[in-house]
Amino acid sequence: MNPKNIYISKKFEFSASHRYWRDEWSKEKNEEIFGLCTSPHGHGHNYELHVSIQGQVDPLTGMIINLSDLKKHVNVVLRNFDHKYLNLDTPYFESCIPTTENIALILFDLIKKELAGKGAFELFKIRLYERSDLYVDVFKEDL
Amino acid sequence: MNPKNIYISKKFEFSASHRYWRDEWSKEKNEEIFGLCTSPHGHGHNYELHVSIQGQVDPLTGMIINLSDLKKHVNVVLRNFDHKYLNLDTPYFESCIPTTENIALILFDLIKKELAGKGAFELFKIRLYERSDLYVDVFKEDL
Amino acid sequence: MNPKNIYISKKFEFSASHRYWRDEWSKEKNEEIFGLCTSPHGHGHNYELHVSIQGQVDPLTGMIINLSDLKKHVNVVLRNFDHKYLNLDTPYFESCIPTTENIALILFDLIKKELAGKGAFELFKIRLYERSDLYVDVFKEDL
Amino acid sequence: MNPKNIYISKKFEFSASHRYWRDEWSKEKNEEIFGLCTSPHGHGHNYELHVSIQGQVDPLTGMIINLSDLKKHVNVVLRNFDHKYLNLDTPYFESCIPTTENIALILFDLIKKELAGKGAFELFKIRLYERSDLYVDVFKEDL
Amino acid sequence: MNPKNIYISKKFEFSASHRYWRDEWSKEKNEEIFGLCTSPHGHGHNYELHVSIQGQVDPLTGMIINLSDLKKHVNVVLRNFDHKYLNLDTPYFESCIPTTENIALILFDLIKKELAGKGAFELFKIRLYERSDLYVDVFKEDL
Amino acid sequence: MNPKNIYISKKFEFSASHRYWRDEWSKEKNEEIFGLCTSPHGHGHNYELHVSIQGQVDPLTGMIINLSDLKKHVNVVLRNFDHKYLNLDTPYFESCIPTTENIALILFDLIKKELAGKGAFELFKIRLYERSDLYVDVFKEDL
Repeated sequence: MNPKNIYISKKFEFSASHRYWRDEWSKEKNEEIFGLCTSPHGHGHNYELHVSIQGQVDPLTGMIINLSDLKKHVNVVLRNFDHKYLNLDTPYFESCIPTTENIALILFDLIKKELAGKGAFELFKIRLYERSDLYVDVFKEDL
Repeated sequence: MNPKNIYISKKFEFSASHRYWRDEWSKEKNEEIFGLCTSPHGHGHNYELHVSIQGQVDPLTGMIINLSDLKKHVNVVLRNFDHKYLNLDTPYFESCIPTTENIALILFDLIKKELAGKGAFELFKIRLYERSDLYVDVFKEDL
Repeated sequence: MNPKNIYISKKFEFSASHRYWRDEWSKEKNEEIFGLCTSPHGHGHNYELHVSIQGQVDPLTGMIINLSDLKKHVNVVLRNFDHKYLNLDTPYFESCIPTTENIALILFDLIKKELAGKGAFELFKIRLYERSDLYVDVFKEDL
Repeated sequence: MNPKNIYISKKFEFSASHRYWRDEWSKEKNEEIFGLCTSPHGHGHNYELHVSIQGQVDPLTGMIINLSDLKKHVNVVLRNFDHKYLNLDTPYFESCIPTTENIALILFDLIKKELAGKGAFELFKIRLYERSDLYVDVFKEDL
Repeated sequence: MNPKNIYISKKFEFSASHRYWRDEWSKEKNEEIFGLCTSPHGHGHNYELHVSIQGQVDPLTGMIINLSDLKKHVNVVLRNFDHKYLNLDTPYFESCIPTTENIALILFDLIKKELAGKGAFELFKIRLYERSDLYVDVFKEDL
Repeated sequence: MNPKNIYISKKFEFSASHRYWRDEWSKEKNEEIFGLCTSPHGHGHNYELHVSIQGQVDPLTGMIINLSDLKKHVNVVLRNFDHKYLNLDTPYFESCIPTTENIALILFDLIKKELAGKGAFELFKIRLYERSDLYVDVFKEDL
């Protein structure tokens, strides 16, 4: 193998809705902190997820990871987020707010687990866009 | 005025959630026709709306319509769609499904009414994107 | 039905390669007219195809055409273009150059035939991008 | 020739600055109508221009117009706009404000003249973007 | 708090004009080094600025920084750049050329100062686009 | 010089075709691993290459590297890839598959050599997009 670590990234998309609300806060405090995101039945986004894999290139295939495998593994995770109301349809946001930050942290862990032991590559980073002008990066290590 | 009609378009964005479901159909029929969009608590999108105004250029201002006015009028309409669950938070989808087609038809009518009598210009077209690869065009007249 | 014709558009993508060359012309003339596109083994592009359907909205489904049907019909056509060398792997460019113009004309006819008789809608327009800064539009009628 | 008219579009870019100001108006009135655009030394944009040519496909070349010719003709026009302060460095805005509307009208006329008599094609439309969320369309005829 | 550092980025835009010129150089030398950017009254761009904040997620709000705060702080800085001729309307480019590099270095310092002491987060990086194909990255530390 | 290292990135584009195939494998194995990319005459893409240069800003020019120089050096490399069938028209893929990973590794080395000794800057990173949803990053060092 070429001993250099490089990075391949694939973009995925899912559509979901969410609501920002803390029961222990008043309506006024919720609106002060969360603004329009407190709307009672939620609202939604086209999320865009970039999954970046770190590894070395296999000399036979020329690949770090076969993209059909990468898609298969990530979609195991995303099928629980796509076309869902994140607060009610997933178990992840019972006690934490489904902000872009929290969704990204949870997706990083889930994808990392899903990829574990599947080959000589590692989840390096995810980037999650809530909109084209707002995104969160989670790296395997602090920079 | 320059007697030629030209067209100025401004992009707007709103985030909303929706659900496709007909009560008079079985769950199976709903899923056959609407697929993942039948998810019970809805899911969401970043909608992108292009509003195109037709008119002649005012020789003093060089404008068809002052963009600060256009933004003000369109936002009167969009504030009822942004950060909403369209099925429950708006009155428009009680008997019609909030598909991109229907949302576009309703937005066209609402924006047309809002602009009526505001100046020597006309709503020519709207384009509504549900995602970057799916959009609906409504023109003031059939092409 | 809402008697107004509106337009729904879906984006498709395919990757193909092509070569511009006329056997009856000298190498010099080919290069003068076609430039780098005369490269002997071809070169390629990520083509992006926007398919626009004209019709009225069905009051039950809220749709002009079910997108799963539209995808199915268009992909019958595109599977013969995707991951192909257009000059050798398709029958369409034996006597015509696979320019963006000609590919668009051929795709329009093939998709129109594929959609014929499938419902109360019509192929209105296709737009074919060879690159993000170069595209061809074919309408059902001259504007 | 294939007797069908189709349309090929090419994107061009130029960077320019401009100022909105009418000498016969007070500072207050200028600011009321033109807002931040009254800034005394101007400000700027990356303009994006889409030039759409209508014509029939030449059976030998497969082209409506050779793109190297189209680029040459349009750049004759754009070289007077690129990297310029439109108010002072061009003769077009002495008595009219360099709004997107007016720049588009002037570019349409200049490009139309430049293309006249150069072949069996016609300038059909230009679209001028001042920003990605604001654009003006000028057609050869009113729609 | 989740002890992991993650990164949230928000995109901002401003329109400005600038000129590249050194008085101590001849016109020929200026043109050799700076090309079209020497145009005497300047030219302009739509700048796009990505501001990336590093921090840990607050367990109550699910946020690193409230986006309404981030917008407020960054806009304090950008209001002095938006709709300005950078050479004459700001104090930053009297002795340094307003290249993308220099604008980025100055914006990094100004935003860092504006955010200092405002919470448990840090300015990690800015990316400044002059055009979509040209951008500069400044990190809090060298990589 | 400002002693801080910063990064300037420029986007380049090239159009090429390629085929994934290992002679020592059966047709079935090739198709299992490489899917549609085994198509015998190849297929193509619009590749997008981002070249990121690390360095300090020259106080006279305000630049890390003059962009006209950067373009010149990178184009020396890209002219051998643009409008080519990578498997047959270049010497780089005789024994390695022209995957995005391998093309990126080769481009990194070629550009690094081309830039060596040309100034006080270094190739820091390249990013190569095969499509907008698939890209490879190569850094000068492992992260």
